Amino acid sequence: MITAIEDSPIYPIVNPQSIAFFGASNNFRRMGSIMLSSVEALGYEGALYPIHLTEEQVRGHKAYKSVLDLPEIPDLAIIVLPTEVVCQAMEECGRKGIKHAIVVSGGFKEAGPEGATRQKELEKIADNYGIRFLGPNCLGVANPHLKLNPTPIPAEGPPGFVGLASQSGSFLTQMFNYLHRHGLGFSTALSVGNEANIDIVECMEYLGACPNTKVIALYIEGIRRGRDFMNVAQSITPHKPIVALYIGGSESGKRAGLSHTGAMAGPDAVYDGMFRQSGIIRATTLSELFDFCLALGTLPKPGGNRVIIQTHSGGPGAAAADSLGRAGLELPPLSPDTIKKLRAIIPKTASTNNPVDMTFSKNPMDDFYKIPEILLQEGNADMLLVYFVSPEIFVTRTMKSAGVPPDRIPEEAHTLIAQNVEAFCSLAENYGKPIIGYTYRSLQEQMARSLLDRGIPVYQDPERAARAMAALIEYHRLREKIAAISAEEPDDEPACAEE
Amino acid sequence: MITAIEDSPIYPIVNPQSIAFFGASNNFRRMGSIMLSSVEALGYEGALYPIHLTEEQVRGHKAYKSVLDLPEIPDLAIIVLPTEVVCQAMEECGRKGIKHAIVVSGGFKEAGPEGATRQKELEKIADNYGIRFLGPNCLGVANPHLKLNPTPIPAEGPPGFVGLASQSGSFLTQMFNYLHRHGLGFSTALSVGNEANIDIVECMEYLGACPNTKVIALYIEGIRRGRDFMNVAQSITPHKPIVALYIGGSESGKRAGLSHTGAMAGPDAVYDGMFRQSGIIRATTLSELFDFCLALGTLPKPGGNRVIIQTHSGGPGAAAADSLGRAGLELPPLSPDTIKKLRAIIPKTASTNNPVDMTFSKNPMDDFYKIPEILLQEGNADMLLVYFVSPEIFVTRTMKSAGVPPDRIPEEAHTLIAQNVEAFCSLAENYGKPIIGYTYRSLQEQMARSLLDRGIPVYQDPERAARAMAALIEYHRLREKIAAISAEEPDDEPACAEE
Repeated sequence: MITAIEDSPIYPIVNPQSIAFFGASNNFRRMGSIMLSSVEALGYEGALYPIHLTEEQVRGHKAYKSVLDLPEIPDLAIIVLPTEVVCQAMEECGRKGIKHAIVVSGGFKEAGPEGATRQKELEKIADNYGIRFLGPNCLGVANPHLKLNPTPIPAEGPPGFVGLASQSGSFLTQMFNYLHRHGLGFSTALSVGNEANIDIVECMEYLGACPNTKVIALYIEGIRRGRDFMNVAQSITPHKPIVALYIGGSESGKRAGLSHTGAMAGPDAVYDGMFRQSGIIRATTLSELFDFCLALGTLPKPGGNRVIIQTHSGGPGAAAADSLGRAGLELPPLSPDTIKKLRAIIPKTASTNNPVDMTFSKNPMDDFYKIPEILLQEGNADMLLVYFVSPEIFVTRTMKSAGVPPDRIPEEAHTLIAQNVEAFCSLAENYGKPIIGYTYRSLQEQMARSLLDRGIPVYQDPERAARAMAALIEYHRLREKIAAISAEEPDDEPACAEE
Repeated sequence: MITAIEDSPIYPIVNPQSIAFFGASNNFRRMGSIMLSSVEALGYEGALYPIHLTEEQVRGHKAYKSVLDLPEIPDLAIIVLPTEVVCQAMEECGRKGIKHAIVVSGGFKEAGPEGATRQKELEKIADNYGIRFLGPNCLGVANPHLKLNPTPIPAEGPPGFVGLASQSGSFLTQMFNYLHRHGLGFSTALSVGNEANIDIVECMEYLGACPNTKVIALYIEGIRRGRDFMNVAQSITPHKPIVALYIGGSESGKRAGLSHTGAMAGPDAVYDGMFRQSGIIRATTLSELFDFCLALGTLPKPGGNRVIIQTHSGGPGAAAADSLGRAGLELPPLSPDTIKKLRAIIPKTASTNNPVDMTFSKNPMDDFYKIPEILLQEGNADMLLVYFVSPEIFVTRTMKSAGVPPDRIPEEAHTLIAQNVEAFCSLAENYGKPIIGYTYRSLQEQMARSLLDRGIPVYQDPERAARAMAALIEYHRLREKIAAISAEEPDDEPACAEE
């Protein structure tokens, strides 16, 4: 186990002060050029040294014929060269004294026996020089906090709290947009590729120590060091949640994974058990992986599994109740005291059963403060799930009818909604109970977007909200179990048989 | 059973030439006013007669003190009045000779014993005058083809092919935006409310006959006429798919539904059997309801359950394979002939296993025509599932690097992507096999949006695509079964015991 984050070989890979870049050129269609352009787009402030045999300059940077010519020893080499010359580049990095690398190039173990031999050679060169590297056959890393994105797709949105270690590079580089739209962002993301040198276990260990990472997401096609994986996970989950998507369990997932990274998948049940014993929450799909991350990275520990639904629409309330029931959550009745407090401010057609269905808003402001505050004070409940329609529509329409000049409406509506968001968010801070939203509208509308930006999870379907809430409860249950076992057992006691 | 659509009491309700509107006023905060504003926003071209005791004009329309004063007998009355005066309004409608109504007002059976008595009174008045009506406690109807939207929220997007009959009004009026974002739209939508007079069975029957409706969506909290429901469904499903979301099966869903419309839910398994025997596809969530509608309303009948995945990213391909496997779909290997044809145009690092993973695009145009065409010609497969990243990013970036002037890029990129969409859509027309897309990016980006607008389903997660594909297969399986039974049995033979 690492004791400080700087002890991890991954630290210089995601926090480099200087990078030697192999494979970028002025031909924009080359993968290396594309990756360098993403680095530039995010505004990386360290030194960039393109290595190129013939070009004097690459995309405006002075280019060097050989890494040996560089004026300093870079912290990191990124290699995006044709397969045949990767070993040579690694050799030269070693001679220069470079100790960390990312090998993006493919054509190694995933490409058959010849590639496997080539990978052995690459590993040997790295070992000779004490180089630690990610890949080959990966798509790089991202550390948005350092404005570092050597991946093929430009980063989007602010840095976030999700630490990703992925056996798919696409699930790193193609997820910036997805995460931003869903209120998330990477703290640090690592594409492990063929794991010839650094594997997913070391990545998880790094993310466990990374202060920007509140929750770890793993995309797994197959794990080689099962025992180490569990030991590291067990040391992390008592203080930081881990969510894993394992796709090698199904026959079709296994075959697809095998041809992808050459990872050997194991039976689904084995992985299930491994995750559970390690306190890891398992997701079934990529959407679920990040849905769970959103809940686990933003919400406080719930006191139990009792949820109040706040709605002003019967169908969406009933659908949420159905989803919560299916996810094992309970809908307690409101206490007489809560009902009394509510009755003073809600329409007489409103239902004070749970879901609390206002039917319509007597005073729309109350939806975002007074009503949820009363529901958060309910001693019989542990969490609050709130349905959002679209305040924009109602606010704009009401202002129009009230005679607000049309050119003033957008700004006034914006201000009003911002006030509601502010009021609502203060409840989350004051009451310490998990508050979750759901809507069928776009998450990019002002209300939902602002809530997401303020760390209130909003889901696009109550089913997704319910499953995320169940994952939150499950994490805290497993966490306590793991913490209790860790307290009892000496560190080196095996928790399960070696693979 | 109705023999012509005009025979249904619903026909004049969703195709009125003239409407008496009770409850709209110049006070914009009234529900009636809000609903009238939605009608105006969509541009309804029939006659609108607001009925108002004191106002001379309502929102620019001449108002009438009583419906009895109107210059003609309107096709439809829409009643959005305080509960206490609803019966009186219905009485006056009857005296005027109006035969069809929508009662939006609540405070009836859903509100307890007193409300139930009031509902009986309302029913009796309607019966006296031969009035057929939707509601009470509903949120109206929508017929976008007629630019008719008497619901509280403005319509969005073009008319579509989903016919909805819903025991939740919110799932009508709050879904315009959702449907449009997901490539769908209502043909006709009906909120049934308390079903005092017209019930969901009659709505389903109407939608079965409605030529604009390609697929019927039902949101159900409880069905009263089980036998009739099945008979009608069985007469529809051999020629038109029906998808149902039933939320009364879970304990929490049942309780929520009961307080919502007062519908009595039955055990989940009973409904499950009822749906299956009627050829109805069951959805678990609202998202799934419409996901299934999209597939069922756009895709041809597949020859079987064998799917090829086309991707250029390993992780998304593997995740899709996993989802397809879980949904009971098969991933056949490609035949040698297909592999040979592919090899000529894909990179050598590409995998011709299934998923077909190009790893990168040698020629991005090929992704949208040549490669999918080869895969559609594969005799071993019945459907094609294609992963889309974001051509916008790549096209724009490539043009920029190729020196296209920045101000020309948006238009040129748009044209190029439009050409790709055109090419891709022509495949769907020429090969007659279901083609489905998935992406983790926004459906509002040009490629996905254009495909949706052209009737190619694109889902935001391969899991959703896989489940929709499985629903498509299940529909055709059930449909053949129902058709076979119908052919054997005389019409009046009971298919199951009476409730």
